[in-house]
Amino acid sequence: MPIILGIDPGSRLTGFGIIEVGGQIPANRPRYITSGCIRIKDETLDLKLKQIFDSVCELIQEFKPDEFAIESVFLSKNADSALKLGQARGAAIVAASHYALPVSEYPATKVKQSVVGTGGADKSQVQHMVKTLLKLPTSPQADAADALAVALCHANTSQGLALLKGAKTITRGRLR
Amino acid sequence: MPIILGIDPGSRLTGFGIIEVGGQIPANRPRYITSGCIRIKDETLDLKLKQIFDSVCELIQEFKPDEFAIESVFLSKNADSALKLGQARGAAIVAASHYALPVSEYPATKVKQSVVGTGGADKSQVQHMVKTLLKLPTSPQADAADALAVALCHANTSQGLALLKGAKTITRGRLR
Repeated sequence: MPIILGIDPGSRLTGFGIIEVGGQIPANRPRYITSGCIRIKDETLDLKLKQIFDSVCELIQEFKPDEFAIESVFLSKNADSALKLGQARGAAIVAASHYALPVSEYPATKVKQSVVGTGGADKSQVQHMVKTLLKLPTSPQADAADALAVALCHANTSQGLALLKGAKTITRGRLR
Repeated sequence: MPIILGIDPGSRLTGFGIIEVGGQIPANRPRYITSGCIRIKDETLDLKLKQIFDSVCELIQEFKPDEFAIESVFLSKNADSALKLGQARGAAIVAASHYALPVSEYPATKVKQSVVGTGGADKSQVQHMVKTLLKLPTSPQADAADALAVALCHANTSQGLALLKGAKTITRGRLR
């Protein structure tokens, strides 16, 4: 039952979402574990990045995820925001690789496609579908929903890959 | 005798330079400890960032610097390079803050002004002046020279601040 940590990094707010997949009834239905938002205090750059790194490390220590998923970046036209986002992403990804978690990146359109069914979905649609898919009582906060969405996207992709691997094994068995 | 670690981060090459200041003859003459260049292997993003983080952590463990200096970013017009640079900076700064090193940022113009005497100096002038100031037998590689330059800039600024603090203390003493 792999546990997936999804992260939506930002220099002010970094969303996180943790789900578990497989082994439930109905089979492979993703199970919500937790989600939330790291609110970065308005401090110096090094303390901000340390806060992201430490918070992601704490999540990994507490929930022991097996995999890490993050949105790949839709390139902004603004180099300043790209730099800030890059620094936040760097801090989060370093935390994952520090614990040797496999890191997967998905474009935003693929995440939306996977959760809502269309790559052009807006934030409220993502929040609504994350709530529905994970049977949550209320919609998660927007950044937490994005983090859960990337974890769900990874779960779908991983399951697809796992099925494919299974199929290959059977084929090989038949060939033996 | 504070030891300063200067870093010039990049997604392909990350320069580092370590100097020691104060306590030598002539007084406050910066002393070269080491410098070099972390060549980032062409791997996945998480492994690249882990390489920067781990390398900076190793430098900190081996040379036990007291302070960390990094160039603040001259904004590129290219959001893609700003993102990559941001990720590399994030990984390096997180390593410094992981060891509770104070982090100082200096604009490139200030670093050049401090080392060469003019904010518009080119790379070869920086390499030449770093070689002269630290009495090195040859010019360091360009990224290593930039890292040594930002460490030298920090040394100058810190010494200025320390002198200022000293002056203030004397003034207070006189006022008592």
